[in-house]
Amino acid sequence: MRAEIVAVGTELLLGQIADTNAQWISERLAEIGVDVVHHQVVGDNLLRIQEAIGLAASRADVVLVSGGLGPTEDDITRDAVAAVLGVGMVRRPEIEDQLREKFAAFGRGEMSANNLRQADVPEGATIIVPRRGTAPGLSVRVGAAWLYAVPGVPDEMMEMVTEVIVPELTARGGEGVVRSKVLRCAGIGESRIAEILVDLFRSSENPSLAYLASSGEAKVRLTAKAGSAQEADALIAPLADEVLRRLGDVVFTAEDETLEEAVGRLLRGAGATLACAESVTGGSVGARITAVPGASAYFMGSAVVYAAEAKHSLLGVSLETMAQAGVVSEACAREMAAGARSVFGADLGLALTGAAGPQPHAGAAAGTVWIALDAIERSHAVGYRWRVERDRVRRWAEQAGLDLVRRYLEGRELPPGDRLD
Amino acid sequence: MRAEIVAVGTELLLGQIADTNAQWISERLAEIGVDVVHHQVVGDNLLRIQEAIGLAASRADVVLVSGGLGPTEDDITRDAVAAVLGVGMVRRPEIEDQLREKFAAFGRGEMSANNLRQADVPEGATIIVPRRGTAPGLSVRVGAAWLYAVPGVPDEMMEMVTEVIVPELTARGGEGVVRSKVLRCAGIGESRIAEILVDLFRSSENPSLAYLASSGEAKVRLTAKAGSAQEADALIAPLADEVLRRLGDVVFTAEDETLEEAVGRLLRGAGATLACAESVTGGSVGARITAVPGASAYFMGSAVVYAAEAKHSLLGVSLETMAQAGVVSEACAREMAAGARSVFGADLGLALTGAAGPQPHAGAAAGTVWIALDAIERSHAVGYRWRVERDRVRRWAEQAGLDLVRRYLEGRELPPGDRLD
Repeated sequence: MRAEIVAVGTELLLGQIADTNAQWISERLAEIGVDVVHHQVVGDNLLRIQEAIGLAASRADVVLVSGGLGPTEDDITRDAVAAVLGVGMVRRPEIEDQLREKFAAFGRGEMSANNLRQADVPEGATIIVPRRGTAPGLSVRVGAAWLYAVPGVPDEMMEMVTEVIVPELTARGGEGVVRSKVLRCAGIGESRIAEILVDLFRSSENPSLAYLASSGEAKVRLTAKAGSAQEADALIAPLADEVLRRLGDVVFTAEDETLEEAVGRLLRGAGATLACAESVTGGSVGARITAVPGASAYFMGSAVVYAAEAKHSLLGVSLETMAQAGVVSEACAREMAAGARSVFGADLGLALTGAAGPQPHAGAAAGTVWIALDAIERSHAVGYRWRVERDRVRRWAEQAGLDLVRRYLEGRELPPGDRLD
Repeated sequence: MRAEIVAVGTELLLGQIADTNAQWISERLAEIGVDVVHHQVVGDNLLRIQEAIGLAASRADVVLVSGGLGPTEDDITRDAVAAVLGVGMVRRPEIEDQLREKFAAFGRGEMSANNLRQADVPEGATIIVPRRGTAPGLSVRVGAAWLYAVPGVPDEMMEMVTEVIVPELTARGGEGVVRSKVLRCAGIGESRIAEILVDLFRSSENPSLAYLASSGEAKVRLTAKAGSAQEADALIAPLADEVLRRLGDVVFTAEDETLEEAVGRLLRGAGATLACAESVTGGSVGARITAVPGASAYFMGSAVVYAAEAKHSLLGVSLETMAQAGVVSEACAREMAAGARSVFGADLGLALTGAAGPQPHAGAAAGTVWIALDAIERSHAVGYRWRVERDRVRRWAEQAGLDLVRRYLEGRELPPGDRLD
């Protein structure tokens, strides 16, 4: 079964809000093996909504229209559906009664007359009665397609999709389950991964391979369709094994976690604690680590020693090191990491110092970053030179630092010390 | 001029990522008076991308295709554009050279051969040379429409739209100039702003008023179209004055800066330095402040004292306070702020402590946050209770903290101490 989503709302086109409903709906449909093949966004314009619905119904088996079902004058999805069907609108007294009851229960005063628009239904359409909110949804055949109209308000939409539409499509569909497995990699570019996996990408249809890239991280997605979840997972498993075998250490998770979630899991498993000393990253490493619920079990804190003297006064970096090697150096990074470990009483200290750019800093060219990990039995430092924008230097430093901790906790090989040119 | 956005990527249809590019592009185009009228999302399928582009070109003046320009085999936007135009692909040697140079400069090892796909260009198309990343964009006429293809990676897309496409569309627009002024507000919700400005919103067509809301920040955009920039600005000015008069202190900039840029500007102007003590925000306040180039002129650092004992050992918060009032309290916040100011030798100390949730913390309900500002002549603390998601509590805490510094430096009234219920 192929589905198409039509999101209605001028505020979406003006960029005032992001269309997060479509993403959520797509995920739910993918879980039951319904492929979302197109997604359109249209404004609060009768003719354009009508055209969008007509186009969708002509090429998809299931059309999900989200938005435009409220009580105000720019809520015209009902009218557009009626226009597509070539029918009139019928005022449904039972909905009118339900609306009045709901408003009385809300305790929000008199129900304004425009709410009655929600009791108007295209002739021949079925209502989907809402638990939350007041706007009923709609369900109706449009040619060979099944059309569902749901509210744009996220939790009202989610209730209807979860409780009514997904069960109905599941019952109607019969046709299999789609499962995905996402591997995430650090310290390697998407194009290098694609090169390593090129023959698998070309030859594998079900399961299939796809790549996603975002700043500093490359992901490999394996997707399979089969009669059941277990069968789909069984199709994926051998391909996943081969991909892992080829990619090796650069894969930091096969469970679609963030790098900081993976690090948290590993610290928790080792019963170890971490503290950071940040200069170039300004606090973003600590922010990422603490965004994960439960981080207080393994994260002590971060000394964001942005000013040079703070490296000495808070962490004990020696004045000699700061004068001789400078603050963007292997020696300074090692001392910052040891200082953080000591000052916070942690098992591991991670330090990041560098020149983010665009200016050079402390004698180091823009894009120079030194990262050090300090543990009771060893200290390891890695130097980088990234000729990229300031915010990318910071993002890549976060990734490299967290990945160093990850590799250390997994007992893997650590990147060689000097990656400067 | 009417625009249509076509977002390419199966991961968008599978719901694995949200289409945030489209929202950002829509905002940028709205600022220059280009209306986004449709938005389509298609998967990595040659025929469907071709059809989507064809449909867009048939009904819009400007078509922006995002995604599918990378080096891997599922990056087929170039091929789809060529198919729409009915032309072949040409390998452009100058792009090949640029790609090799970039890879050498990245310092990430040998360039894999599949990157050369990015040097293939539909015959007759113009390249948009990227600064970041490697994927060139495309610019070409498709019938009467202007088509632009940009990478899906957000920062690469934003650079091309900002530096090449928006200026080109602005120059081509011809028919008058569109100017926008964006006021940003902190500590007030979009619906309250809309209530205050409702009559202006309804009555004002040129200049027009629009609202944008993102987490913790509400923006008011004034847009005017006239024969020249000066005329457009002159149309905006009286409306801006009235809006500022009504909104007052909640407006932290009329120059579309971020809150951290505004704070940086004010610190620089006052010749003052700032240090932070962060617990609930985990380092994100320091990260935001240091993301602004030149922050080292006014920012000393942040003590991210996530573990309770670190508040004592790094910042000198008294054991008595921690035992009696607890770490999520006015007293602890005040001591953290004073401690940061002292330890970093700064003029101002800003502290943020709280229970982000979903669990309560140290006897405080989820969503409780105390923020304190310490200066030589005064100390001020504000308590909040936000019944929202964990990441929203952290984001709102960042905004409230930075806004407290902003108001202090502007000599404005500070929020009353107790905003708990």
